[in-house]
Amino acid sequence: MAKKKVVLAYSGGLDTSFCCIYLTRDLGYEVHSVIVNTGGFSDEELKGVEERAYQMGVTSHHVVDETENFYNTCVRFLIYGNVLKNNTYPLSVSAERVSQATAIANYAKEIGAEYVAHGSTGAGNDQVRFDMIFNILVPDVQIITPIRDLKLSREAEIEYLKKHGVEMNFEKAKYSINKGIWGTSVGGKETLTSNLGLPEDAWPTQVTETGTRDITLTFEKGELVAIDDQKYDHPTKAIQALQAIAQPYGVGRDIHVGDTIIGIKGRVGFEAAAPMVIIKAHHTLEKHALTKWQLSWKDQLSMFYGNWLHEGQFHDPIMRNIEAFLTDTQKQVSGKVFVQLNPYRFQVVGIESDHDLMSNKFGSYGEMNNTWSGEDVKGFSKIFGNQVMIYHKVNAAPQPPEGGAE
Amino acid sequence: MAKKKVVLAYSGGLDTSFCCIYLTRDLGYEVHSVIVNTGGFSDEELKGVEERAYQMGVTSHHVVDETENFYNTCVRFLIYGNVLKNNTYPLSVSAERVSQATAIANYAKEIGAEYVAHGSTGAGNDQVRFDMIFNILVPDVQIITPIRDLKLSREAEIEYLKKHGVEMNFEKAKYSINKGIWGTSVGGKETLTSNLGLPEDAWPTQVTETGTRDITLTFEKGELVAIDDQKYDHPTKAIQALQAIAQPYGVGRDIHVGDTIIGIKGRVGFEAAAPMVIIKAHHTLEKHALTKWQLSWKDQLSMFYGNWLHEGQFHDPIMRNIEAFLTDTQKQVSGKVFVQLNPYRFQVVGIESDHDLMSNKFGSYGEMNNTWSGEDVKGFSKIFGNQVMIYHKVNAAPQPPEGGAE
Amino acid sequence: MAKKKVVLAYSGGLDTSFCCIYLTRDLGYEVHSVIVNTGGFSDEELKGVEERAYQMGVTSHHVVDETENFYNTCVRFLIYGNVLKNNTYPLSVSAERVSQATAIANYAKEIGAEYVAHGSTGAGNDQVRFDMIFNILVPDVQIITPIRDLKLSREAEIEYLKKHGVEMNFEKAKYSINKGIWGTSVGGKETLTSNLGLPEDAWPTQVTETGTRDITLTFEKGELVAIDDQKYDHPTKAIQALQAIAQPYGVGRDIHVGDTIIGIKGRVGFEAAAPMVIIKAHHTLEKHALTKWQLSWKDQLSMFYGNWLHEGQFHDPIMRNIEAFLTDTQKQVSGKVFVQLNPYRFQVVGIESDHDLMSNKFGSYGEMNNTWSGEDVKGFSKIFGNQVMIYHKVNAAPQPPEGGAE
Amino acid sequence: MAKKKVVLAYSGGLDTSFCCIYLTRDLGYEVHSVIVNTGGFSDEELKGVEERAYQMGVTSHHVVDETENFYNTCVRFLIYGNVLKNNTYPLSVSAERVSQATAIANYAKEIGAEYVAHGSTGAGNDQVRFDMIFNILVPDVQIITPIRDLKLSREAEIEYLKKHGVEMNFEKAKYSINKGIWGTSVGGKETLTSNLGLPEDAWPTQVTETGTRDITLTFEKGELVAIDDQKYDHPTKAIQALQAIAQPYGVGRDIHVGDTIIGIKGRVGFEAAAPMVIIKAHHTLEKHALTKWQLSWKDQLSMFYGNWLHEGQFHDPIMRNIEAFLTDTQKQVSGKVFVQLNPYRFQVVGIESDHDLMSNKFGSYGEMNNTWSGEDVKGFSKIFGNQVMIYHKVNAAPQPPEGGAE
Repeated sequence: MAKKKVVLAYSGGLDTSFCCIYLTRDLGYEVHSVIVNTGGFSDEELKGVEERAYQMGVTSHHVVDETENFYNTCVRFLIYGNVLKNNTYPLSVSAERVSQATAIANYAKEIGAEYVAHGSTGAGNDQVRFDMIFNILVPDVQIITPIRDLKLSREAEIEYLKKHGVEMNFEKAKYSINKGIWGTSVGGKETLTSNLGLPEDAWPTQVTETGTRDITLTFEKGELVAIDDQKYDHPTKAIQALQAIAQPYGVGRDIHVGDTIIGIKGRVGFEAAAPMVIIKAHHTLEKHALTKWQLSWKDQLSMFYGNWLHEGQFHDPIMRNIEAFLTDTQKQVSGKVFVQLNPYRFQVVGIESDHDLMSNKFGSYGEMNNTWSGEDVKGFSKIFGNQVMIYHKVNAAPQPPEGGAE
Repeated sequence: MAKKKVVLAYSGGLDTSFCCIYLTRDLGYEVHSVIVNTGGFSDEELKGVEERAYQMGVTSHHVVDETENFYNTCVRFLIYGNVLKNNTYPLSVSAERVSQATAIANYAKEIGAEYVAHGSTGAGNDQVRFDMIFNILVPDVQIITPIRDLKLSREAEIEYLKKHGVEMNFEKAKYSINKGIWGTSVGGKETLTSNLGLPEDAWPTQVTETGTRDITLTFEKGELVAIDDQKYDHPTKAIQALQAIAQPYGVGRDIHVGDTIIGIKGRVGFEAAAPMVIIKAHHTLEKHALTKWQLSWKDQLSMFYGNWLHEGQFHDPIMRNIEAFLTDTQKQVSGKVFVQLNPYRFQVVGIESDHDLMSNKFGSYGEMNNTWSGEDVKGFSKIFGNQVMIYHKVNAAPQPPEGGAE
Repeated sequence: MAKKKVVLAYSGGLDTSFCCIYLTRDLGYEVHSVIVNTGGFSDEELKGVEERAYQMGVTSHHVVDETENFYNTCVRFLIYGNVLKNNTYPLSVSAERVSQATAIANYAKEIGAEYVAHGSTGAGNDQVRFDMIFNILVPDVQIITPIRDLKLSREAEIEYLKKHGVEMNFEKAKYSINKGIWGTSVGGKETLTSNLGLPEDAWPTQVTETGTRDITLTFEKGELVAIDDQKYDHPTKAIQALQAIAQPYGVGRDIHVGDTIIGIKGRVGFEAAAPMVIIKAHHTLEKHALTKWQLSWKDQLSMFYGNWLHEGQFHDPIMRNIEAFLTDTQKQVSGKVFVQLNPYRFQVVGIESDHDLMSNKFGSYGEMNNTWSGEDVKGFSKIFGNQVMIYHKVNAAPQPPEGGAE
Repeated sequence: MAKKKVVLAYSGGLDTSFCCIYLTRDLGYEVHSVIVNTGGFSDEELKGVEERAYQMGVTSHHVVDETENFYNTCVRFLIYGNVLKNNTYPLSVSAERVSQATAIANYAKEIGAEYVAHGSTGAGNDQVRFDMIFNILVPDVQIITPIRDLKLSREAEIEYLKKHGVEMNFEKAKYSINKGIWGTSVGGKETLTSNLGLPEDAWPTQVTETGTRDITLTFEKGELVAIDDQKYDHPTKAIQALQAIAQPYGVGRDIHVGDTIIGIKGRVGFEAAAPMVIIKAHHTLEKHALTKWQLSWKDQLSMFYGNWLHEGQFHDPIMRNIEAFLTDTQKQVSGKVFVQLNPYRFQVVGIESDHDLMSNKFGSYGEMNNTWSGEDVKGFSKIFGNQVMIYHKVNAAPQPPEGGAE
């Protein structure tokens, strides 16, 4: 009888290695491991994971390079929307996990697997994202979650792997690091408290730049297409180049505390130089090129978009509707943004755009001008305040008659 | 016949000095000058303005100290709401102008003036705020705006004043500075362009601190009540103390470009160390103490509150309704926030609060726990994704019949 | 050994009667039944339920009259907010279920029960409301749900009850009816389809009135206090009186299809004459007395309030915050509303209020007036459209040079 | 010297006839009259207006048939968004006035006019819509508004016209009627009060139907394409056919009170059978086919879209962005809706659609099903209420020590 086919989301770490052995040996599945790269893995790292997968006894191992697709279907809209969860976090991990789960579901469908497995524990967001997206995209495929179900301790997992002859580095990293094109998260120790910051050496990228550097980012319809004079054939290349330039300045580091999907508060450090610089630069360009209500509605829809993405609900059609909105807002978001980098900080200096509404052709703020008169503003002020004036007249406390009481 | 009484918003500068002379001499009004302090003037400065007012021939001069009232009726809610216009600007000038216009209207009513005058030009936001608030609060009082109506050049104003024997410093400041408890604005030269930043020496407070300083801010129901071990008897005192500590680090500086009330884009520099540190610290405390939907609705309502305040619409009763909402959200926003200051930057390190929802009594993010099981999350994921699963099943592209075409 | 104490939400129907017998006989619990009246039960009905409870062997039976408390803590805000889910449904059942679950949790705490049981199936909203509110308010009390767990057929339940000597009317009602102060729901047969309406005889209240009746509703700060000349000492009395007047006209009947908490769509008929008349009358009064932005924000917050209540999330503190907002908006919502009833329809004719902003003292729509001039509106129009004018100038398609091509 | 060219928005009524004579004779302009039909004028009426225009001495008269274009660029989105201002008014006049102003501006540009004139008074919304849209689309063309500027009484206008030999019906209609494809407004007498309804004979269409009629509306991607078995080649045809069927039942009549652009409250009657039936039918179809968050965001964006359109801000690019959103939401809004008409009322009976998410393949509301279990819902309820449970535990009032008091 043919073995049952399972697609396993495999990262090469302890938990998913355990799953590998457990699924093949104890449960007798035919394991097809898959790793989805969203821009955080080098070829070398991917090679290492592949080798390990085969050592663990998988029938096949597959690498999905989702970097460009991840950008096209998701990161792009995070930029259009200047999405920072709770005004802080660029959703680095949240976004890429959704992309990975989607790619894995599609791969399971492609190879006709009846099972799909992931190594999430029962304590975080990822289990919900994986479970839910698998349920949505491949509802007939059964989900297996050995780590969550068996609730083994780290030590028990190691013992099990050793017993099965697996040799790998079992030392626990001080911090759990997750890297993708939209930022790197750092969790552990201090992030498990409410009051402590991360020490300098916890950050994956150390600060090695010391001086001041001015760079120019060029956007076309909301997308980063060039840095200084260098054009890139895909925005992912520009993002990676910017990351290489800016992260050694230590910018875009912060700690976020937010609501997990399962209702508890979670805290995570992140370094995301490129995402933070891009979002702030893009937002400044928009403040020059978009109307008041475009800016206002973008804020509201983007806040929801980010939260709903964070909660793994990427496949709700409302997300496509909002993407249609966001895309439409970017028609005039083209131009140059001037950014200055310094150790631990950056600032957006200014912009230059054909679509800049702050053209002094139409009157400068605080300077007199020609397209309207003081009389016009008098009339405006009168009418603009008309309803509130009426409100206060109607609702003024009536004066008691003299000598009278009330 | 008695002279007509006019209340003049007087700052001691060129424009309002012109108004003073013009109203008394050319138009024959009895001028009652008034200056409203929202925390930006020293006693010495106020004394100087008073002396000048009398030199200009006013019948009376009155100082209204609105600092605490401004805080109680407005700044407080900007903190509760973490209000940053377009995610950047703490509304330093916008907010205080509204407070000043209100105080002046009340003063005009108090002394029974039939006229009220302000020195705004026809090119900015302030004229609308003054006009509108006067129309709303003292609709029967007539508004006089000599600068806007006469459209005189700076030179013409100076000549006029000299002709009337006024001696004052007629030299134009390089930048126009406006100072209040909620920040200092800096306008001129570079801020009239889209692409240039402000040079270091344009900032009113120069950076004199060099090291690292850790401070602890204590909030009670959303209000800053102590810095380190120092308690203050009114939050305005705490804000001013924090400003004195933090501004020499150069933090809270930025340039904002935004929509003016009159439809053009305006750009302004600001230094607002205390407002920025307080808002970020307060927001972090809220991220620990409030539920997901409290955070979300606060963001939406506060964004509107800030914009509507900016547009001078403080007296719309919707503002009172939102204040009732915001006040109610602050019941649990008490605790300590740890902040680190460094030259040009600060960071919120962490918090400590009895109301922290990130208590590890209820399960730590990423760690296993006791109040729910992996099974619970499986069920949750299934139901949470149920509608979208159904949506995709119902709307799946139908498969073409074998051998057929579509 | 003392028996384990369980509080059972008891309605006297088949499912909860089964629970009663099952918990006492099969599981050996000491059952304390409780029924919560939210205005839908007569004394006679409550008496009947009590008798049956004791026949089923409960140790104690308790009636909680929540009608006024339900109004004070919930219905009141549904009126303030003009809450109609998806612009249709006054949330009759959703709201009262939350109130009932809360009362039951409090009762369980009061008598020190270690268990609480409800008779919901696994297919509707109520299970989530009960489970969740019990988890929130009495997290240490265990929840028992025999109907959901045993998945018995109706026939099996009847057989079980008969076997245990229970005699009751086992005939299945054609429609499932649920009655409370905020409306009566009707489910079954046609509501299980998408395309069929309810037949005339399905409605609990038949249409017996034929002519036209004019009534006057008096509101004070958003609450219904009188009908015609009859004042009521509590709004619940006014609601019940209005219901008695209006339901025989057949008004306030409709079918709602909406999103259940568990992700499927659900359809339900309802008759809710008093809720619909009150909401439409109250809304009209508000349209006269509130400012544009009060109306707009009330709509947004109320929509969320209704949805979140529907999903059982009444105890989220955001609900208290929104209630503070809504209460604050009602300060001027006082006056009379004139309503005309006719068979199957009603209309709000007009209002009369001291707070009516449509006072012709301030200019009538379409008629000339005194507080502003045509010049003022010219100025207003110019400034009001300024940004969009600039936008179109800046972004006008550039003209190709003569003789050139593009 | 060539006469100055002015385009005049001409309706054939008293005010615009006055403008005609005044512009040609007193001011010496070359008048090009234009009338824009948005579906409310018959060919005969248009012919009559044309004849009168030439009698008034215009150089040319032009009819713009905007009906289809008005639908394509505006009404379509009012349907997609189920737009009812303040949940009442389909924006009949507001929407068409914007369409007319746009068409007139384009015509002025086309014939190279240096002036454009409209006959609005200084007391309503229309002046703002005309002024603003002309300022935006043809900023270099000067706007002339004789009625607003001269503030003549009706009698003075009549006298002037008579003096210039104009013969027309000078009797004032009891109600001012405005008809377009999206409804007919009725203003006058009672609508100038807050408390009176319109008498039966004020309605342009009298109720002549007596029985019950069932009709089926077919929508394709949100657009009405057929009534019963009759397909229409453009939705405007279907709307007009539905109007002919439904208005004689007297449905879709109401009085709306709302905020004018100039800050006062305005009240207007309207009969809009087709718009009301279409919106309610379309909304019901959406409640079956869209997800919860699609419905929720549609409501919010549509509310803004309607209000901003009402205020004449159709040319703000945010409107295009929202239209992109709305269009994207309609992909699955196809199917049949069953509607029943009765005198003075209609009801949506049900729907039938391939995109109905209330498919019993996925579990019926209140009935057991197969795609999830009671256990799943238990887990869901636990996690769904997790944060609020934690909130209440953390913030529980501490118990006073025994024997103590508080």
